[in-house]
Amino acid sequence: MQVEGQHQDDQFHADIYGEDGVIRAAFVAHIGAAIADRDTLTLKHEVGDLHQSELGDLLEALLPDQRRALVDLLGTDFDFSALTEVDEAIRLDIVDNLPNAQIAQAVQELDSDDAVYILEDLDQEDQDEILSQLPFTERIRLRRALDYPEESAGRRMQTEFVAVPPFWTVGQTIDYMRDDTDLPDRFSEIFVIDPTFKLLGAIGLDQVLRAKRAVKVEEIMHETRHAIPATMDQEEAAREFEQYDLLSAAVVDENERLVGVLTIDDVVDVIQQEAEEDLLRMGGVGDEELSDTVAATSRSRVPWLLVNLCTAFLSASVISLFGATIEEMVALAALMPIVASLGGNAGTQTMTVTVRALATRDLDIYNAGRVIRREVLVGLLNGAIIATLLGLVAGLWFHNIDLGLVIAAAMIVNMLAASLGGILIPLFLDKLGADPAISSSIFTTMITDVIGFLAFLSFATWWLHLGGG
Amino acid sequence: MQVEGQHQDDQFHADIYGEDGVIRAAFVAHIGAAIADRDTLTLKHEVGDLHQSELGDLLEALLPDQRRALVDLLGTDFDFSALTEVDEAIRLDIVDNLPNAQIAQAVQELDSDDAVYILEDLDQEDQDEILSQLPFTERIRLRRALDYPEESAGRRMQTEFVAVPPFWTVGQTIDYMRDDTDLPDRFSEIFVIDPTFKLLGAIGLDQVLRAKRAVKVEEIMHETRHAIPATMDQEEAAREFEQYDLLSAAVVDENERLVGVLTIDDVVDVIQQEAEEDLLRMGGVGDEELSDTVAATSRSRVPWLLVNLCTAFLSASVISLFGATIEEMVALAALMPIVASLGGNAGTQTMTVTVRALATRDLDIYNAGRVIRREVLVGLLNGAIIATLLGLVAGLWFHNIDLGLVIAAAMIVNMLAASLGGILIPLFLDKLGADPAISSSIFTTMITDVIGFLAFLSFATWWLHLGGG
Repeated sequence: MQVEGQHQDDQFHADIYGEDGVIRAAFVAHIGAAIADRDTLTLKHEVGDLHQSELGDLLEALLPDQRRALVDLLGTDFDFSALTEVDEAIRLDIVDNLPNAQIAQAVQELDSDDAVYILEDLDQEDQDEILSQLPFTERIRLRRALDYPEESAGRRMQTEFVAVPPFWTVGQTIDYMRDDTDLPDRFSEIFVIDPTFKLLGAIGLDQVLRAKRAVKVEEIMHETRHAIPATMDQEEAAREFEQYDLLSAAVVDENERLVGVLTIDDVVDVIQQEAEEDLLRMGGVGDEELSDTVAATSRSRVPWLLVNLCTAFLSASVISLFGATIEEMVALAALMPIVASLGGNAGTQTMTVTVRALATRDLDIYNAGRVIRREVLVGLLNGAIIATLLGLVAGLWFHNIDLGLVIAAAMIVNMLAASLGGILIPLFLDKLGADPAISSSIFTTMITDVIGFLAFLSFATWWLHLGGG
Repeated sequence: MQVEGQHQDDQFHADIYGEDGVIRAAFVAHIGAAIADRDTLTLKHEVGDLHQSELGDLLEALLPDQRRALVDLLGTDFDFSALTEVDEAIRLDIVDNLPNAQIAQAVQELDSDDAVYILEDLDQEDQDEILSQLPFTERIRLRRALDYPEESAGRRMQTEFVAVPPFWTVGQTIDYMRDDTDLPDRFSEIFVIDPTFKLLGAIGLDQVLRAKRAVKVEEIMHETRHAIPATMDQEEAAREFEQYDLLSAAVVDENERLVGVLTIDDVVDVIQQEAEEDLLRMGGVGDEELSDTVAATSRSRVPWLLVNLCTAFLSASVISLFGATIEEMVALAALMPIVASLGGNAGTQTMTVTVRALATRDLDIYNAGRVIRREVLVGLLNGAIIATLLGLVAGLWFHNIDLGLVIAAAMIVNMLAASLGGILIPLFLDKLGADPAISSSIFTTMITDVIGFLAFLSFATWWLHLGGG
C-alpha cells in the first residue's frame, strides 16, 4: 500500500513539473482558472499538499494579481514558508498586500529561521507592529535573531532546538523527546548545556539510538568543535559546514551560550547565493534579482559601465597617439581590435580561474608562485599558437608578410600581458582586502586593450619608419 | 572537563589555520622538518588527529616530494579519505606512488563513496587489480557503483545504510542498531524494505526516537517521494536535495531496489562543483584544475581563443569596409573601440544574469517575456546615459559636436543590440539543448563588436558624405 502511495505521489509531482523541470503550463492555467472562479475548494485541494518550494514555483509562475488573490483565497491554508522560496520583489509584493495581523498569525506557525527571512525585508514599522502581536517568547526569539547583523549566522539560525543537561541518561532523553510536543520539525543533533545555557557538547541522534538507556548523556557526548558565533558571517559559517561535513551546528552568543542551531539546508542556500554573487560580480552586475524593476536594474549596472567608459577613453587616447601611422596604412585600424580582443579573452580566462581559486581558498601562498609561473608559460604557449595563425592570415589577407610578423609579435606581447594581468590583478586586489570578483575583469581588459593597441601600433610605426610599408 | 576539552580543541584548530583561513606557514614548516627528519612519532602525533579536510589542506601546502614521503611515513595511519579533499592531479600523484596492495588495504577502511571517488580516476588495470584484492562483498559494492556512469548519483552514493523490514517494531530497530557494529559512521534516516530489497519507505531518526518501542515501523514510516535513480545525473539529484531540503535520499536501481544512499555532504560538493563549472565556462575555460600542467591548461583554453580569432576577423573585415572613411577622418579609428567595448560590457551584464537564471531555472516561459522587455528597456536607458556622456566627451575632445552626435547614436544602437543579444542568445542556446554558459559570451561580444563598428562607421560615413566632416 505504501508503495502505491509512493507512486501516486511521484505521479503528482510529475504532474506539476514538465520534463524540463519547469512547472507545467496546464497546471498553472488550471490554478489560474480556479483563482478567477474564486474556487476555494479546488485551490485548497490542489495547492494544500504542495511542498513549500513547489508552491513558491507556482507563485512565481502566476501573474501578480493572481498571486495576491491566491494568498487571499487560501487564507490560513496558505503556507507562508513558500515565501522564502520566491524572489524578494515577489515576497514583498505579497506581504505588503496583507494586513499585519494576518502576517503575525502566520509567522507563529513558521520555524524561526523562515520567520526571520520574511520579516527582515520589511520596514522597521511593520516589523515592530507584527512582533508586538506575537506571544512573548516567540517575540523575544525573533527579535534576538533580527538584532544580529544581516547575512550573519544569527539571522539564519533556527531558535528551536533540543537541549538536555549532561547528567541525564539516554533513557531520560528519549522519554523527554517522546513527550515534548514543542520540538523542532526535524533535527539531527541533541545539544548538552549547563544550567546557564552554556554549551557543553552535542550528540548525534544515531549515537543516542546506539547507546543503552542507562548511559549518561555526558559519557557519549562529543565536544562541539564547530560552535558558530552568532555574529559570524554566513559565508564563513557555510565554509565550516563544507570543510567539516556538518549537518547542523550550534550557534552561540558572545558568552558561549547556546542561542540557536544552523542547519545544512539553510547553508546550502547560502552556498548557492554566494556562488551566484561571484558570478554576477564578474559579469559586472551588482546584487540583482530577476524580478527587479528597470530602474533598479539600470542602477545596478550603470556604475560598471561608467568605469568602462573611462578605461575605453584611455585606450582611445593610446590609439590617437598613432594617428599619423594609421593614416599611412589604414589596414592597421582594421587589425588592431583583433590583438586587443584576443588579449582580453586570454586575460579573462586566467582571471576567471584565479578569482574562483581565491574564492575557494585553493590559491594561497603555497602554490601562488607555481600558478603564476604556469600562467606565464600558458600565455607564451597560447600566444605563440594564436600569433602564428593570426600572422599568417593577416599576412595573406593584406599580401604583406611583414605586417603578419608585426601583428604576431604584438599578439605574443599582449598574451603575456594578459597572463600577468589576469593573475596578478586579482591576487593584488585580494591582498588589499577588496573582492577580486568585482573589479578584476575591468582592470584586466584595460591592460589588454592598452597593451594590445600600444604594442601593435608602435611595432607598426617602427616598421613603417624602417621603410617596410 | 568537557568545556576545557573543547577549548583545547579550538586552540588546536586555530593553530593550523591563520586569520585568513589559510594553513599557517609555521605549521607547514614544522611538518616539513619532521618529514625531512623521518620523525614518524611527531608526524603521527601532529597529523593523526587532523580532520580529513585539514589533512587535505596540509597535503596541498606541501611539496610533491614531501607529500609522498608523508604518506609513506604515516603508513596505515594515513587517512585516505583526505585524498577526496585534494586536486585530482595531487591525488593521482600520491596514489600512483603507492603499491596497489596498500591502496586495496586502505580502501576497505573508507566509506564506499570515498573509495569510489579515489578509484574512479585510476586506469582500468589498477582498478581491477585493487578490486581483486578486496573481500567479496566489498568488491561487489564498489564494482556496482563504478559501473554507473560518471557524475551519476550511483557514483556518489554510499552503499552502507540501515534498512529494516516493515513489520519490525521501533524497539527491535533500536536494539538492532545497538548490536550491529557494521553501521555507517553517520546516518539520519532508516530505510524500510521488503525481502527483495524493494524500497517501501523511510523514517527519520528523530521520528524513531519520538515513537514508542511497541510501534511498528510501517506505522511511522513515510513514503520516499524523492528516491533517486542511480543513473540520474548528480546535478539533477542535487537539485532535488535543494528543492526539498533533503538530508539524505535513497538511491534505487532500475527495479526500484535500494542500492545506496546519497547524503547532503556529497551533494554540497556537487553544488560547488557545478557552480564552479558555470563560472569557468563563462570565462572561456574548460574543465580545469589549479594543479593542471601547462600543456593541459593550454589545451583547455586554446579552442575558445580560436573561436575568438574567427569572430575577431569578422569584426576586422567589417572595419576594412570603411577604409576610405577612416582615411578621411582618422579620429574614427580611435573612437570606434569605445562603442564596441561598452556594448560588449553591457551585453555581458545581460548575458550573465540570463545564464545564471537559466541555470537555477528562475527564468522560464512564465517570465521570459517580462525579462526580455525589461532588458530592452534597461539597454535603452543605460544606452541613453552612456551615449550622452560619450557624445559630450568625444565632441569636446575633437572639437566637433557632430562627431559627438554620431558616436552617441551608434552607442544607443549598440546598447540595444547588446541587450537583445545578451538575453536572446542564451535563451536560444538553452532551447537548442546547448549549455548557454559555454558559448553565449563569444556570440554576444561578436554581435556587439560587429554592430558597434558597423553602426559607428556607417553613421560616420553618411555624415561625412553629407559634408559634415
